[in-house]
Amino acid sequence: MKKVNAYGAKASDADLEAMNIDRRDILPNDVKIEIDYCGVCHSDIHQVRNDWGNSKYPVVPGHEIIGHVVEVGDEVKNFKKGDLVGVGCMVDSCQECDACKEDLEQYCENGMVATYNGQDKHLGGHTFGGYSEMVVVREKFVLKVPENLDTAAVAPLLCAGITTWSPLRQWNVKKGDKVGVVGLGGLGHMGIKFAHALGAHTVMITTSPSKAEDAKRLGADEVLISKDEDQMKKHQGSFDFILNTVPVGHDTNPYIALLKRDATMTLVGAIDEVDVHGGGLVMGRKRLAGSLIGGIKETQEMLDFCGEHDIVSDIEMIDMQNINEAYERVVNSDVKYRFVIDMKSIKN
Amino acid sequence: MKKVNAYGAKASDADLEAMNIDRRDILPNDVKIEIDYCGVCHSDIHQVRNDWGNSKYPVVPGHEIIGHVVEVGDEVKNFKKGDLVGVGCMVDSCQECDACKEDLEQYCENGMVATYNGQDKHLGGHTFGGYSEMVVVREKFVLKVPENLDTAAVAPLLCAGITTWSPLRQWNVKKGDKVGVVGLGGLGHMGIKFAHALGAHTVMITTSPSKAEDAKRLGADEVLISKDEDQMKKHQGSFDFILNTVPVGHDTNPYIALLKRDATMTLVGAIDEVDVHGGGLVMGRKRLAGSLIGGIKETQEMLDFCGEHDIVSDIEMIDMQNINEAYERVVNSDVKYRFVIDMKSIKN
Repeated sequence: MKKVNAYGAKASDADLEAMNIDRRDILPNDVKIEIDYCGVCHSDIHQVRNDWGNSKYPVVPGHEIIGHVVEVGDEVKNFKKGDLVGVGCMVDSCQECDACKEDLEQYCENGMVATYNGQDKHLGGHTFGGYSEMVVVREKFVLKVPENLDTAAVAPLLCAGITTWSPLRQWNVKKGDKVGVVGLGGLGHMGIKFAHALGAHTVMITTSPSKAEDAKRLGADEVLISKDEDQMKKHQGSFDFILNTVPVGHDTNPYIALLKRDATMTLVGAIDEVDVHGGGLVMGRKRLAGSLIGGIKETQEMLDFCGEHDIVSDIEMIDMQNINEAYERVVNSDVKYRFVIDMKSIKN
Repeated sequence: MKKVNAYGAKASDADLEAMNIDRRDILPNDVKIEIDYCGVCHSDIHQVRNDWGNSKYPVVPGHEIIGHVVEVGDEVKNFKKGDLVGVGCMVDSCQECDACKEDLEQYCENGMVATYNGQDKHLGGHTFGGYSEMVVVREKFVLKVPENLDTAAVAPLLCAGITTWSPLRQWNVKKGDKVGVVGLGGLGHMGIKFAHALGAHTVMITTSPSKAEDAKRLGADEVLISKDEDQMKKHQGSFDFILNTVPVGHDTNPYIALLKRDATMTLVGAIDEVDVHGGGLVMGRKRLAGSLIGGIKETQEMLDFCGEHDIVSDIEMIDMQNINEAYERVVNSDVKYRFVIDMKSIKN
């Protein structure tokens, strides 16, 4: 049997056998985790469907993983059998470049190892993610999960959570700031919860008046309907920061117009072409930035913050057997706000 | 006769009479300046030709003004008759908003008064610029010009100079940084001189191999030909800051790819649509910013720095009578690197 790579997950024994792969032994600094829950991220769907043209089959998706430690390598110091842990979008990085030294492994100059469909550094081949019974992860990339939270609802924090938390922290969002969150989905709903918990005057910016009520329930102090030109004009030049979670290319200019002088809008979703007028940036010395998930240290800080402030994701639990239906509903934005797979169901 | 506004310049007595306007008396905090030289900025041409659709005729362009004080109002403290002074793109602002209080009058929340084609705050009507014998300017907007420099070649510092200086300072360009300057024209040639003088490893980024030699003469340590994909790839992810002086909409993605993680490219020329891929910003947490000229305090700092480091613009002097030919040559990028009008010629 072919050995699976260092981060190999096991879908089921039968699946493994069908794929002609065998789970490898753990390395001295590896942690082996039995998976309890795994969130469903839109990028899982892109990878399964090869939308980005870089998928490697067989694909085992899932990078919002919650589980319990079942075994640790000889050199593992911070985890022991039974610990409640999480794994996000990365399972390894070089640990030697400037980015890694600055605890920004997501920008590892030698390429971070994605939790699934990533390049294995030790054994070759590609990594397998969290839609699985088990995962083996380098200790450094394992997160401690606060015990006081609804464990299943913590799963999406590992991707949707940290992706929105990181730019809010990087741009120093604080009490009294006026912060906009564009788009109310898996990312946006976490952006609102975090901006609100950080003390900002939080404004949901959405095209859909129907989302107003739910946005307020999640913590928005105000809802700004971006199709309403009068409202947009009224808010012009008034935002200290805008978190833009729109997942596709779009016209950023109406949002840039909302920023104060010297303020920033950070894109966390749109990775294709966006419309930008230079004049909108020049006239107010404004900034359009990007941000990719977050580092491991920062992810732990976010989880700790969530423990203290009792923050989790709004989820809908599904069984593994319903994943295809769930994918369709994600594509149609028909979930409030994240599906989480109950991994016990994988054994059904 | 109709009185001209507070910042009124006098083209000539005959011109004024033809325009049915009379120069107003100076206000208590005004400085009256006899103009020696005036630089020719591309925006002069845009306004004269009403390219932006907001020109007010008669237009007297010119916002790179060098002259001597001939009269001061009763409350003027910092200038006296005979002082060598400069006036840039602004002649007034509210002085009360946050931007003005932070010495960033160019972003005045109540609208700064442009040196020409601006809205007069006191008398109504519009302002007249430096292609003229005289100009009357609020004291706060008058700059002291170092006596040791080639006076005519100082003129372009008041717009091209401060426009490139301000973002280099805002983004803290310093010794050892690798800084790119995109585009070698009136703005770009000042960007190179400043980045070099600030101690940065300065790279001219241009589409034209023919500009390499001149770029090095101006202070570039390296020249990167942006059409050469191999060269561009070699420099990928290596710049601490990029100053983008391209004056029209263009594809910014190849330049964003040159930035290090967390680094910024600032647009100072392009005020129309630019091409931006969100992914280029997201993957390295990069920033696309804008910057508009600079504040008066910062402009004075730049002039003082130029006095200390013996920096001026590279100019070609013309008489007022040659302005139309000069405009054609500016449009065709056929000037190294700025025309300056010898204002004595206005009396010919």
